[in-house]
Amino acid sequence: MAKNEFDIIKHYFAQQQLQRDDVALAIGDDCALVNVPADYSVAVSTDSLVAGTHFLADADPASVAYKALASNLSDLAAMGATPAWVSLALTLPTIDEAWLAPFCHSFFELANQYNIQLIGGDTTKGPLSITLTVQGLVPRGQALTRRGAQVGDDVYVTGDLGDSAAGLALILNQSSSQQYSANLVTTLVDRHFKAQPRVNVGEALRGIASAALDISDGVIADVKHIAQGSEVAIDIDVEQLPLSAELLAFCGEDRQRAQQLALTSGEEYELCFTASVANRDALKAALAHTNVKYSCIGKVKAGSGLSLLQLGKPLTWQLSGWDHFVETNN
Amino acid sequence: MAKNEFDIIKHYFAQQQLQRDDVALAIGDDCALVNVPADYSVAVSTDSLVAGTHFLADADPASVAYKALASNLSDLAAMGATPAWVSLALTLPTIDEAWLAPFCHSFFELANQYNIQLIGGDTTKGPLSITLTVQGLVPRGQALTRRGAQVGDDVYVTGDLGDSAAGLALILNQSSSQQYSANLVTTLVDRHFKAQPRVNVGEALRGIASAALDISDGVIADVKHIAQGSEVAIDIDVEQLPLSAELLAFCGEDRQRAQQLALTSGEEYELCFTASVANRDALKAALAHTNVKYSCIGKVKAGSGLSLLQLGKPLTWQLSGWDHFVETNN
Repeated sequence: MAKNEFDIIKHYFAQQQLQRDDVALAIGDDCALVNVPADYSVAVSTDSLVAGTHFLADADPASVAYKALASNLSDLAAMGATPAWVSLALTLPTIDEAWLAPFCHSFFELANQYNIQLIGGDTTKGPLSITLTVQGLVPRGQALTRRGAQVGDDVYVTGDLGDSAAGLALILNQSSSQQYSANLVTTLVDRHFKAQPRVNVGEALRGIASAALDISDGVIADVKHIAQGSEVAIDIDVEQLPLSAELLAFCGEDRQRAQQLALTSGEEYELCFTASVANRDALKAALAHTNVKYSCIGKVKAGSGLSLLQLGKPLTWQLSGWDHFVETNN
Repeated sequence: MAKNEFDIIKHYFAQQQLQRDDVALAIGDDCALVNVPADYSVAVSTDSLVAGTHFLADADPASVAYKALASNLSDLAAMGATPAWVSLALTLPTIDEAWLAPFCHSFFELANQYNIQLIGGDTTKGPLSITLTVQGLVPRGQALTRRGAQVGDDVYVTGDLGDSAAGLALILNQSSSQQYSANLVTTLVDRHFKAQPRVNVGEALRGIASAALDISDGVIADVKHIAQGSEVAIDIDVEQLPLSAELLAFCGEDRQRAQQLALTSGEEYELCFTASVANRDALKAALAHTNVKYSCIGKVKAGSGLSLLQLGKPLTWQLSGWDHFVETNN
């Protein structure tokens, strides 16, 4: 892009005031230079959001920026890593200040909240897309992976499940939202657009959880990654799924419908994790200061695969969308 | 993308056998985990190549992969960093095995040559583009930046300059290539498509060069970044520019035309660096084992900006394209 366009982008990128002590060189050379404390590992994750695939080209740029960074921060949270640095590759059809201003404002607001510094990237001309590479720090040997779940462990999730899917349904069918209270609509839509990455929970789970991941494809799709990675079976009891009052109201108090949404809702950015029974007290103490609620939803068993139970017995109702999730389990 | 498509991509990504000891966790979890040796900094660079902007959508996928990775490796070389890890964000309109197979073959061939491991990324559906984030290791305090050039330093470049632009001209106007020998055409086209990132030179320059960068926009555009970053002036003598026999033949032995190409040719991936006169012997010794030639092309002076000289006197001919490069100096 030409000089003036670079200047415009520099102007917006200069909005961020955050300067971390471990960044020896930020934007403006061939590479950024960062320093890692001794005895820490670096967690690295890359995600792309492409217009037309992950969001509509006319989507609110502030929401696009939030989603791009929050989903990456959630990957760091799932490893128990503390956010540190982010690189931003931004491809734009044209330099549109009306798009860039809210995008950058939202991006840096969230970045500053989590003390993550933009250290570089690339700005190119082309169809709208955003690729972020985030990096975080975790004490060596303490990262939470998908591989450590042990037979007998409890299975937990943070927060409530299903709200993001309900919020998306309200966004996609605005006329239907008139039957609900404004407060319910606002709450559920915010849960979709403004899900909070559980960074402080991930940090608190170091040394306590045996396995963890974030819920991005729906808990039944994601929990299978723990079962596969740890070579165990997992039982989930649908009666233990945490459901918000707003979700139940959205479902007309149809509990089964709410449970179905809770099982399949993606982009929740809640953490799903396992921990031994012996660690129950330690878990309670560690998460007390995070102000994030958590619920036990199941158990780790010997074997393989995922089983859904209701009050300890096999589920009698058919989960619609189940086949789809089995099929695209990746 | 659906399961089958993921499996196809996994198949191609599994081609790579390279496993670095410092990668604690590679592809398959929420994040990769890497370990950095004590007293090293991490150099990080991100570049995007977008179809229609940086290459034609029907370009040879092997060349696209090579260009994407080589240009990023060249950024590490310019910092004196040793390549370590790379994340690949690949956006594809469809999963086309006829495209993916040569892309991956070329990508991993180059990655293995430089001992850089793919640690993660994202594969998404959308308009064709490739974003790489590469990371390298450099002893703390020894990275080569654009800021250290001192008045009195010599200015050097590796290799020959101008070949990449000549190769591109031959590619874009194939009918004209019939007037040249097949050997000349092959050599210059390869210099465009297969430029070698000067990683071993960058490593050898640690502790010797005072400033460095790679030539990606043409030496007169790039050397100004050193002048600005180091707050000095730089003189370049066009008679000292290293010109290949093939470039001179391509230019019909018109030396001035060859010099002009050498000054403005981008994507050379040669290094431009400064070093003190006192370091001339150390430089010679350090670069002797790299089998890469280097040439002194100028001097660092007090002041600001870039001056072009010919045999020590102000240049008498007009550099076409000069205004363009001045304008887009960024």
